[in-house]
Amino acid sequence: MNNSIITLTSDFGDKSGYVGVMKGVIYRLSPSVQIVDISHAITPQNIAEGAFLLHTTHRYFAPNTVHVAVVDPGVGTNRRAICVRVPEIGIFIAPDNGLLTYIIEAYPNLSARQISNPNFGLSEVSNTFHGRDIFSPTAALLAEGEPFEQVGDLINPQSLVRLPNLLPQWQPAAKNRKLAGFIIHIDQFGNLITNIPQNLFENFSPKQLAKLEITVPLMYNLKGIQKTYGDTKPGKLIALFGSSGFLEIARVNGSAAHIGDTQAVKPGKKVTVRAVEG
Amino acid sequence: MNNSIITLTSDFGDKSGYVGVMKGVIYRLSPSVQIVDISHAITPQNIAEGAFLLHTTHRYFAPNTVHVAVVDPGVGTNRRAICVRVPEIGIFIAPDNGLLTYIIEAYPNLSARQISNPNFGLSEVSNTFHGRDIFSPTAALLAEGEPFEQVGDLINPQSLVRLPNLLPQWQPAAKNRKLAGFIIHIDQFGNLITNIPQNLFENFSPKQLAKLEITVPLMYNLKGIQKTYGDTKPGKLIALFGSSGFLEIARVNGSAAHIGDTQAVKPGKKVTVRAVEG
Amino acid sequence: MNNSIITLTSDFGDKSGYVGVMKGVIYRLSPSVQIVDISHAITPQNIAEGAFLLHTTHRYFAPNTVHVAVVDPGVGTNRRAICVRVPEIGIFIAPDNGLLTYIIEAYPNLSARQISNPNFGLSEVSNTFHGRDIFSPTAALLAEGEPFEQVGDLINPQSLVRLPNLLPQWQPAAKNRKLAGFIIHIDQFGNLITNIPQNLFENFSPKQLAKLEITVPLMYNLKGIQKTYGDTKPGKLIALFGSSGFLEIARVNGSAAHIGDTQAVKPGKKVTVRAVEG
Repeated sequence: MNNSIITLTSDFGDKSGYVGVMKGVIYRLSPSVQIVDISHAITPQNIAEGAFLLHTTHRYFAPNTVHVAVVDPGVGTNRRAICVRVPEIGIFIAPDNGLLTYIIEAYPNLSARQISNPNFGLSEVSNTFHGRDIFSPTAALLAEGEPFEQVGDLINPQSLVRLPNLLPQWQPAAKNRKLAGFIIHIDQFGNLITNIPQNLFENFSPKQLAKLEITVPLMYNLKGIQKTYGDTKPGKLIALFGSSGFLEIARVNGSAAHIGDTQAVKPGKKVTVRAVEG
Repeated sequence: MNNSIITLTSDFGDKSGYVGVMKGVIYRLSPSVQIVDISHAITPQNIAEGAFLLHTTHRYFAPNTVHVAVVDPGVGTNRRAICVRVPEIGIFIAPDNGLLTYIIEAYPNLSARQISNPNFGLSEVSNTFHGRDIFSPTAALLAEGEPFEQVGDLINPQSLVRLPNLLPQWQPAAKNRKLAGFIIHIDQFGNLITNIPQNLFENFSPKQLAKLEITVPLMYNLKGIQKTYGDTKPGKLIALFGSSGFLEIARVNGSAAHIGDTQAVKPGKKVTVRAVEG
Repeated sequence: MNNSIITLTSDFGDKSGYVGVMKGVIYRLSPSVQIVDISHAITPQNIAEGAFLLHTTHRYFAPNTVHVAVVDPGVGTNRRAICVRVPEIGIFIAPDNGLLTYIIEAYPNLSARQISNPNFGLSEVSNTFHGRDIFSPTAALLAEGEPFEQVGDLINPQSLVRLPNLLPQWQPAAKNRKLAGFIIHIDQFGNLITNIPQNLFENFSPKQLAKLEITVPLMYNLKGIQKTYGDTKPGKLIALFGSSGFLEIARVNGSAAHIGDTQAVKPGKKVTVRAVEG
C-alpha cells in the first residue's frame, strides 16, 4: 500500500472515457494510488486556463503528489514531454507548452527532465493521446517509487516554454498606476476569475482598495473591492479577491458571465485595474 | 487502513478545481479514506435541491460515512458551520442554512454541534470557501477517528435552520384532497423530480392512483401514476414514483424538461396533485 | 485489501447522485475496491454510444476488472440482466440490450450468465434503477471473489442481443468500394468519432489513404486521412484515425460538431467513405 496521489487536469471532458482510460493505465502500474480529478473542463486548447488551475490547486496536496496536466494542442508534433520536480511541493508532468508557467516561475529550485525513457511509456504510443500513452504511465511509475532520474535527460529550466503575459504587472502612468490582465477562468457560479493576483495589492490601504476602478471593457465598470459575497445584496455585481488569491468579478447569488441564458463572456477577455491616487 | 467514506455534495461544478482542492485537503489528513462525489451540479445556491440529493442518497452508504454538503450562499457571514451525528446512519457536515432539513426531520435522535474548534479547520480560513477551509478538514479528522465531541459546542437541535415548505401535506378540501409541491431536481434524462413523497399515497388503491390528477401549471396535466418507463410508448408523458421514492414527471425515451433544445422548466416550479374521490 | 477495479459507464449524468448511490452500494459490499468512472454522459438511451465507449476503454484495464454498463431504456420490462466473463480480459455486467455487442463480437470465448440469483441484488429491487439495485451489488460481490457461477443460469451466447449495423463493411460497387457508418460519439473537442474502424483500411497504401473520400451528407466532404492534429493549420477540417482506432472528423483547434455556439450534428448521423481506385 502506498499513499501517494496522482492528480489529473485536462481539457478532455468527462464524456468520452479519455480520463477513464488514463486511470486504467495508472492503476495497472500503481494499483493502490489515489487519483484525484482537478478539472477536465479546461476550455479546449486553453493552456493558460490549465496552467492557472494547476497553480491554484497543487499546494493543497501532499508533497509526494504527482500532478499530471494535459492541454496539448501540439500532440504528435515535436513538442517535448516534460517532468518537473519541486522539493517539498510535488512532481509535475505535462507537455512543454507553457502549462507549467506558474510552477516554473514560483519554484526556482525545480529540476526538469524530458520524458524520453521508453520504459516510462506504453509499448505503443499514438500520435493523438499522450495523456494515455506517456503521461499516465510516467506518473504511475513515479508514484510507485521509480526514480525521477530515470525518466530521461535533464533539461535546462531556462529552456522550458513559458506563456507570455500570464503575470500582470503595474504600469506606472503619469498620475495613476494601472494594470491589465485577463479573465483566465469562469467557474460554475459564473464568477469571472482573472489572472490578477492579490499580492499586487498588498501595500494598499482599505481606503485605497475602496477606490480601485475595475473594468471589463464594454461590459462592466466596478469601484472598489468587497470582502465576501454574503454581505451584499443579491443581484449586485462586485469585485473581490477569491479563495485562491486572484481578483474575481461576481454577481451575488447570480452569474457575472451570463446575460439571460447566454454566456456573454469567455476566458481571454481583458480586465484592467486603475489605482486612483490621492 | 481505514475503510470509512466521505461523500461530497455541492454546487461547485466540476470545472474549477474546487472539489479537487477539497480532496487534497482531505487526503492530507486521512490518506486512505474513500471519497465519493454525490453531485457538484446543484443549481447554484439552491439549498432545497442540495438537501433533497443528500436525503435521497445518504442511506445507501455505510453508517460510518461522513457526508459533506456545501451549498453556501451565506459563506463569510455569521451563519454557523454544523456537524450532525445520527447513530446507525452517519455524520453530516454543512452550513446551518437548511441543507440538513430532511435529515433533521427524519432522525429525531441526532446530536448537533457547531464546528468551532480551530483544530478542525485549516490554519488560514478564507471568507469564501469554507468547503476547503473548514468542512473538508473536519470530515477528514472525523473519518480518522477524532471524537465528534471535540468538534465544538453542542447545539440545541431545535435551533437548527430548516427550510419551510420542503415537506408537502394533503390539504383536505370540500370534496377532494389536494397537495402542492414543487420540482426539486431535474435529472440528466429531463425527468422532473418533485418533493412529493410516495408515502403520502400509501393508502391509495390502484384505482385511486389511476385517477390522480397531476398538474404543472401552464405546462402539463397528467392523469394517473404509471409503474415504470419501459412499458409505455416512446414520447409519452407519464407520472411515476421514481427510484428514490418521490413523484416524477417523465417523457418516455425523451425529456420532460426540454422543448426542443431549450430547457423549459427549472427547479422550483409548482406541481399539484388532486385526489378525485368516488 | 483487494486491488480489483470496477468501472462504471452510463447515461445517468453526474448531477443527480445516481452514480454516487451506485458507489455507496458497491463500497458497502466491497470496501477497498477502486471505482473508475468511464462516462456518465452517454446520450440518454443511446445504447450504441455506450457500447462504443465500453469497447474503446475496457482493454486499458487489468483483466480482473469488472465493467458495469447501464444504458437501460427497457428497465422494468422483461429484458434480461446479464454478466459476461472473458478470460484474460474482464467481466461485463449490463442489461441484455446490445450494450455488449462489441464485446460479444470480439471475444468468442466468453461465458454468459443471467443475473438471477437474488443474493446478488439488493433486498428491494425497484422498477426504474437496476444500476443501483442489481448491477452494482453484483459487481461488488464479484470483485470480492464470489464465483461467477453463482450469479445465475448460463445463457447461450447466441441468444445475447446484438445491435445491428454497428460494424460497417465494405460494399463492393461497380468501380469503387464504399462503406457507410455513422457518428457514434462526439467528444469534448467536438471531434466526430465514427464507428468505422481503422482495420478496414489496413491494406491501403499511403497513396490510397490520401485519395479516400469521406462524406457527412449535407455537411462535410473531405479528401484523405491525416496523421495528427498538430501538423495542420488551425481551423482546418481533417479526417484521421483517432487514438482508439476509429475514423474521426476534427477541426484543428476547433470543433467539427459546432456551428457558432450551436451543436450542429448529433450521434447517429451517417458517414460514408469511398475508395477511389486507380
